[in-house]
Amino acid sequence: MSEELGITVKRSEDFSRWYLEVVRKGGFIDQRSPIKGCDVITPWGYAVWEIMQREFDAMIKEKGVQNAYFPLFIPESLIKKEEEHFAGFKAEAVVATRAGDEEFSDPLVVRPTSEMIMYYMYKLWIRSYQDLPVKINQWNNIVRWDTKVTKPFIRSREFLWQEGHTAHATKDDAEKFLSGMIESYSKMYELFATEPLKLVRPKHDTFPGAGYTVVFDTLMQDGKVVQGPGSHFLGQKFSKAMDISFTDEQQKKQHVWQTCWGMTTRQIGMLIMHHGDDHGAVLPPAIAPVQVVIIPILFKGKEEPVLARAREAAKKIKARCFVDERSHSAGYKFSEWELKGVPLRIEIGPKDVEAGHVVAVRRDTGEKIIVKELSEIPKILDAVQKSMLEKSRAFLKDNVRDASTKEEAKKALLRGGFVRVQWCGSQDCDRAFKSETGGEIRGTALREEKPSGKCFCCSSVSKHVAYVAKAY
Amino acid sequence: MSEELGITVKRSEDFSRWYLEVVRKGGFIDQRSPIKGCDVITPWGYAVWEIMQREFDAMIKEKGVQNAYFPLFIPESLIKKEEEHFAGFKAEAVVATRAGDEEFSDPLVVRPTSEMIMYYMYKLWIRSYQDLPVKINQWNNIVRWDTKVTKPFIRSREFLWQEGHTAHATKDDAEKFLSGMIESYSKMYELFATEPLKLVRPKHDTFPGAGYTVVFDTLMQDGKVVQGPGSHFLGQKFSKAMDISFTDEQQKKQHVWQTCWGMTTRQIGMLIMHHGDDHGAVLPPAIAPVQVVIIPILFKGKEEPVLARAREAAKKIKARCFVDERSHSAGYKFSEWELKGVPLRIEIGPKDVEAGHVVAVRRDTGEKIIVKELSEIPKILDAVQKSMLEKSRAFLKDNVRDASTKEEAKKALLRGGFVRVQWCGSQDCDRAFKSETGGEIRGTALREEKPSGKCFCCSSVSKHVAYVAKAY
Repeated sequence: MSEELGITVKRSEDFSRWYLEVVRKGGFIDQRSPIKGCDVITPWGYAVWEIMQREFDAMIKEKGVQNAYFPLFIPESLIKKEEEHFAGFKAEAVVATRAGDEEFSDPLVVRPTSEMIMYYMYKLWIRSYQDLPVKINQWNNIVRWDTKVTKPFIRSREFLWQEGHTAHATKDDAEKFLSGMIESYSKMYELFATEPLKLVRPKHDTFPGAGYTVVFDTLMQDGKVVQGPGSHFLGQKFSKAMDISFTDEQQKKQHVWQTCWGMTTRQIGMLIMHHGDDHGAVLPPAIAPVQVVIIPILFKGKEEPVLARAREAAKKIKARCFVDERSHSAGYKFSEWELKGVPLRIEIGPKDVEAGHVVAVRRDTGEKIIVKELSEIPKILDAVQKSMLEKSRAFLKDNVRDASTKEEAKKALLRGGFVRVQWCGSQDCDRAFKSETGGEIRGTALREEKPSGKCFCCSSVSKHVAYVAKAY
Repeated sequence: MSEELGITVKRSEDFSRWYLEVVRKGGFIDQRSPIKGCDVITPWGYAVWEIMQREFDAMIKEKGVQNAYFPLFIPESLIKKEEEHFAGFKAEAVVATRAGDEEFSDPLVVRPTSEMIMYYMYKLWIRSYQDLPVKINQWNNIVRWDTKVTKPFIRSREFLWQEGHTAHATKDDAEKFLSGMIESYSKMYELFATEPLKLVRPKHDTFPGAGYTVVFDTLMQDGKVVQGPGSHFLGQKFSKAMDISFTDEQQKKQHVWQTCWGMTTRQIGMLIMHHGDDHGAVLPPAIAPVQVVIIPILFKGKEEPVLARAREAAKKIKARCFVDERSHSAGYKFSEWELKGVPLRIEIGPKDVEAGHVVAVRRDTGEKIIVKELSEIPKILDAVQKSMLEKSRAFLKDNVRDASTKEEAKKALLRGGFVRVQWCGSQDCDRAFKSETGGEIRGTALREEKPSGKCFCCSSVSKHVAYVAKAY
């Protein structure tokens, strides 16, 4: 709204400023809220989130997951009971201490995640093996008062996400379910036309309270990575601490096995930094709120047939179409929809109406295509989706570099992307390398690779093939 | 989950306890969260909310409304600027005062509604007439720390809702839009199979900061009313106070005209108290997450054809079907789905398979119907929807009683429902009557009725035909 269009800086000049301009001018987010780090997700950005929600929601419901809603607040006394878990969030926890003028005797923590409140209820709900599995998900808002510099979508103090929490009778059932969930996230990444590196986080960087954590790390165009959805195997850690138990078929008391998994609005920022170009965002068709924008090119006195054709096309094309009939110039509209990342632009002028075709322009390649049959359009969108994914795969492949020593790793890291190293598994090596270079051990591949040789850092026997990168 | 089924009390004996049992045992909500008044919306209740969301979301998007997300927090300093508005929420405002151990210099109010934060942004966004109208909606969570006794869905300290906020260039455009929104809510009430009384709230009971407020009051079976969605014409009150202005086509500065409108999870409780019976909830088909529950009646050795037929039916019936294949007894399943309010139950036993029919049982009337063609089922659902709405209309009609004096009004009020009176318009009369009887003036009909005669309370000249009722 009344915003200057056009990105004033190239990615190669200042990636961070480029990103800030794209998210703001493209209508994804507005950072000018009165609270630093709590941004306004504006309609275009929110529409992307709605599509992510719709797609993922359908996937988890097919797996028998049900949505529910748990309170925003968690009593401080309750959250403190799980010390290890709370320690991971304590510094960032926002605390409500009064209502009106009345002080709370037990202050309320604004949820930084919902384990404690959900598992409190799970304990009440689960009695018998017949109550299992419990598979519940929430779509909600989360607050973590990060003191570092915030970055819209990527690092914000309030964000939206889904958090799924399951309880199972057996370890096997829990792990099988979690694998299925990792598959669902993989399908989401196909919709994102994005190839992530699927990593098991190092033990010392695992979600507070979790047995192991699988994350999707995605490479941005500046060579740094953004962490995507996390899938956590919690084992019996919480269930034993909180005594969430059930009577099994043999009338024996057992503790449940748990998983949790989440995906956030951060994905929107990831998409932009991964796919964007110097003109703005480039959204994959599967996730774009508008897949085809139709821009009538109007000349005085010749408006009617052009508008009629544009509206007719919008109805006929089996895709999310929008006819931009605003009074702005065609050039203004081109720039705006480019900024927003709409995958395909269709231009229709009087000559096109006469010729019985439309001109389609691909956002990802700029290619102009004369289209005679509108039924071709969905095929073009499929081609865009596919070629964006291929490009992403090639980008990842080209940006994993092997290094066998610290010096090699340092050098490789300068080029950005992932550096694959042999690692002894010690947090000290990770710390040492990080403090020197800013790069950190992100984890080991989900499909484990066999270690060999010596740790890149301390030269003791390697126990893992690990991936190093700088992260947002 | 491991919950005793069956309602232990009749509506006529203890309406409030009946309601509490239905919402809990039916799986709509669980009040046992560690924070009083912040309830857990359990999967069945949340599924009802999801359908309400889906239906209403489609309606508003058709009207050009876009969804967005604004911060949970509002700086206390900002919210205090609009004194009259904040006064209405101050006593109930939950305030966050620290993050980790660090105190905020400007405490953060957890949104009791989002006018202040949204209009802060509107001021930044709106410059020219070309930016108007702005039509934005949020689906989010709201906190109002009610000190009264809470009641699940109906009066809770945290609830979910949608809040739509629009800004227009002219009064006329704003009012036209608001009328359309009242129509949308009317359509929602058709889906609810519920006839509300559409009222304009008395001036003294208008939403803080609003010019006028239209609400849907619905009669519960105990004769009290529950307030439904509110549609507020804000006029230029906020826009002048906050200077939200635009340059019109004549290059003149103007303040925008605003509306806001919201519907909450309270509707779920309303549905239950309006339609429920002594066996539990009775959901209208349009809103029921499961419209048809299919219960295979299994006998040892004869399971296969019955299960096959049940699964086949679920696929063939054009409705939201669920086959309950759990190991519980058929009787247990009947009770549970009755409790949950599923509109139609289909029983299939070996004899039904042989006879080539199914037995359908209507939740609302208990009527058993032998169905030969599965294509009849959607028609039965339509009939249920229609007859529930008719029943609701008759219920409202039967429960509006005229009274011309205070004594008559008192008497009429004892019978529950609405009492229609002549009213002078003074808040004193309302207050006096309320303190004596608990009944209050809910408003005047949206389709205004002509006053005549004297005020029922003070006998001065009547200015309005008003409706009196006791409210939740």
